[in-house]
Amino acid sequence: MVCCPYNAVMTFVNDTHNPALKSFVDSANTGTTDFPIQNLPFAVFRRAGSKEDFRCGVAIGDQVLDLTALGKMHLLSGDAAQAVQACSESSLNRFMALGAASWSALRASLSRLLSIDSPHEGVLRGCLVPQADVEYDLPARIGDYTDFYASVHHATNVGKLFRPDQPLLPNYKWVPIGYHGRASSVGVSGQALKRPVGQVCGAGQTVPVLQASRRLDFELEMGIFVGNGNALGSRVSIDEAPSHLFGMCLLNDWSARDIQGWEYQPLGPFLSKNFGTTISPWIVTNEALAPFRKPFVRDAADPQPLPYLTSDNNSAQGSLNVSLELLIETQAMRDTGTVPHSLSRGNYNDAAYWTPQQLIAHHTVNGCNLQPGDLLGTGTLSGPTADSLGSLLEITEGGKKAVTLHNGQTRTFLEDGDTIIMRAHCESDAAVRIGFGECRGVILAVEL
Amino acid sequence: MVCCPYNAVMTFVNDTHNPALKSFVDSANTGTTDFPIQNLPFAVFRRAGSKEDFRCGVAIGDQVLDLTALGKMHLLSGDAAQAVQACSESSLNRFMALGAASWSALRASLSRLLSIDSPHEGVLRGCLVPQADVEYDLPARIGDYTDFYASVHHATNVGKLFRPDQPLLPNYKWVPIGYHGRASSVGVSGQALKRPVGQVCGAGQTVPVLQASRRLDFELEMGIFVGNGNALGSRVSIDEAPSHLFGMCLLNDWSARDIQGWEYQPLGPFLSKNFGTTISPWIVTNEALAPFRKPFVRDAADPQPLPYLTSDNNSAQGSLNVSLELLIETQAMRDTGTVPHSLSRGNYNDAAYWTPQQLIAHHTVNGCNLQPGDLLGTGTLSGPTADSLGSLLEITEGGKKAVTLHNGQTRTFLEDGDTIIMRAHCESDAAVRIGFGECRGVILAVEL
Repeated sequence: MVCCPYNAVMTFVNDTHNPALKSFVDSANTGTTDFPIQNLPFAVFRRAGSKEDFRCGVAIGDQVLDLTALGKMHLLSGDAAQAVQACSESSLNRFMALGAASWSALRASLSRLLSIDSPHEGVLRGCLVPQADVEYDLPARIGDYTDFYASVHHATNVGKLFRPDQPLLPNYKWVPIGYHGRASSVGVSGQALKRPVGQVCGAGQTVPVLQASRRLDFELEMGIFVGNGNALGSRVSIDEAPSHLFGMCLLNDWSARDIQGWEYQPLGPFLSKNFGTTISPWIVTNEALAPFRKPFVRDAADPQPLPYLTSDNNSAQGSLNVSLELLIETQAMRDTGTVPHSLSRGNYNDAAYWTPQQLIAHHTVNGCNLQPGDLLGTGTLSGPTADSLGSLLEITEGGKKAVTLHNGQTRTFLEDGDTIIMRAHCESDAAVRIGFGECRGVILAVEL
Repeated sequence: MVCCPYNAVMTFVNDTHNPALKSFVDSANTGTTDFPIQNLPFAVFRRAGSKEDFRCGVAIGDQVLDLTALGKMHLLSGDAAQAVQACSESSLNRFMALGAASWSALRASLSRLLSIDSPHEGVLRGCLVPQADVEYDLPARIGDYTDFYASVHHATNVGKLFRPDQPLLPNYKWVPIGYHGRASSVGVSGQALKRPVGQVCGAGQTVPVLQASRRLDFELEMGIFVGNGNALGSRVSIDEAPSHLFGMCLLNDWSARDIQGWEYQPLGPFLSKNFGTTISPWIVTNEALAPFRKPFVRDAADPQPLPYLTSDNNSAQGSLNVSLELLIETQAMRDTGTVPHSLSRGNYNDAAYWTPQQLIAHHTVNGCNLQPGDLLGTGTLSGPTADSLGSLLEITEGGKKAVTLHNGQTRTFLEDGDTIIMRAHCESDAAVRIGFGECRGVILAVEL
């Protein structure tokens, strides 16, 4: 029962994607949920407000399947049994390190166990916790966090603000530009961050001042979690990359533009970014994303990537059809019970010049070792149109054109109390819609 | 028995620095050893080639004091007993997290236990392992690694190669410039690294090629280990910084200049650096360095740092008198039994524009959270003179002037088989000389 256009890639598109599959958890079968049985993303959770240990879970409809509880039932065998035992921890790192065959085995088992025909429905119902009752931790201990710059539209928009004559630097269309970010300040959705303080030097000024950022921004990105790693000195080829790619989430790369402008030459962003990065709790696995993979296409006007960034296995290696939405909720909206304002809608495939597989192949071409749980950010996923931009810097043209929200408020940059919400989902004619849940973070006032 | 010029700072300069102190370990009393009883640096070790668990140790003369073995003797009480128990692990992170009072308590106890008057000499001799028989691991699990750019001479020399008219950017004398490096590829002395492969684009070329780096370099730096951390959203003031600073080591920031030149705009170095960073095994504690602290002085021609980078407690906050030496040992030197060639000699105090305390205060001013075991690199410690430069890029003026080694070989950049050795020590009239041991790494050939 293979359902999808890329049925040559049996490892990635298999029975677990069958659109006819239903779960005994009714909320998974609505057609609008982010978490149908075809998704099965992973997170780390506990009952909200409890002192329980955090533990690994899988989303199904509006429930979380507790994998530690499931492991104690001894319903699984072989690779899946080993995999669920690896999930009996407070992070997904050990499971991630097992590799793609184990991830796939557990997914296939969970798909059967949670199906409407499950022989173990009664037992499994005892392992479900309503999502409404839980709180999340980071899904993995993140050893290193790397942020890329994969949207050519974002790079062009930002470049225009600084270099109108040469928005794109000569390396952009050859090198997947990236830099190392701060792992310690990555937090899970719900993160509340104080407005950062830093050195700022106004235009025409020569003496900086220390102040709270006045040009605080977000960046709409996706996060990529590395599964099994590679040894220092070895490379992951682009053909091997999918088996190292555990899954994806949403990521907000908060950015203080005024601090960034003063500090970033010549070594790149530092304090303007490392005060916080927020990710969504659920990791949608690479296997769940398989039906939404798009062939990698490079415009004829652009150079073809170097061979180490090119694969013949185009459908498995390609880009992704992921719809993205970015919303802002101000304190005034919360006070008046008004819905958030939608700032932007786009799609990974329209925004990204480089695919996740290319990012992994590039990251390791020099022998750099990736480790299970490492996080890569895609870079700001701005699309080609004015309604698909991923940062206020771009939406307001560097703060020059305020955006008016649906309640009449305006913004150039973020104000205290502003919450940024990111959502994403995948849909196609041949597959059931799956979603990423929400990535939400709020800015708090700071005292200097 | 206070011995040092900064005797107002009793927490940092105390009996453990007394130059009259001798150890019952004779090799600690030579006057030339790196590890007299006044030093007592920490490392993680095991017997070379064994399958033993790595464990924490302290250097004394040519021996390692096994802290796990010491802990089992129950000779200590109070904070020192808690501290030695925290050292009964395969990394120093838990000990680092205990804070400066615990570090100081253990140091004071070890100083007494290892002294020539020790009442426990017999028992302690059973806890000693010859350094010649051990191998080292990283002293801590490094959560995040940050690299700074603290030498104004290095920044000027490198700037001249790219911007003859404006070697120093306008922010340099205000902002301690830094960026995030790769934690996963930090290794301990003895690290053997394959020459990195990467995209390179020659001068005047527009199409890059993938090749092994031909402009491979080192950078002579010191590493700073963070002890206890700070919560996300909080700051470490410059006056608090010393109590967060566990100690220092040597650090080689290997750099592929050709990869760096093509990739680094606009987000900074990435694959040109993250293939490996080598540190010395021993962390010389901040307390051991106290007699060698120098008042912080800013030239009258330079701007005074902003208030958050300035302290009235100048002697405790200041720079450090650390002598640095950089050597190269080629394969030909090893084949002929020739000693390494000394490339450069300098001093932290002459090279660094910013002190370690300023780096910590700057890193956290925006609320960024440091964690126990985090590593900061100072940046290349090039001094003001031609014989005190910390990289081949500077020594050879960008590869234009080859350096001739004592055996007649020449180098512009590193060749396969080249070993880079870094050493450092502190000396003053009022204190016993202490050293850092060695940081050694070798470059291996790579197949494309």
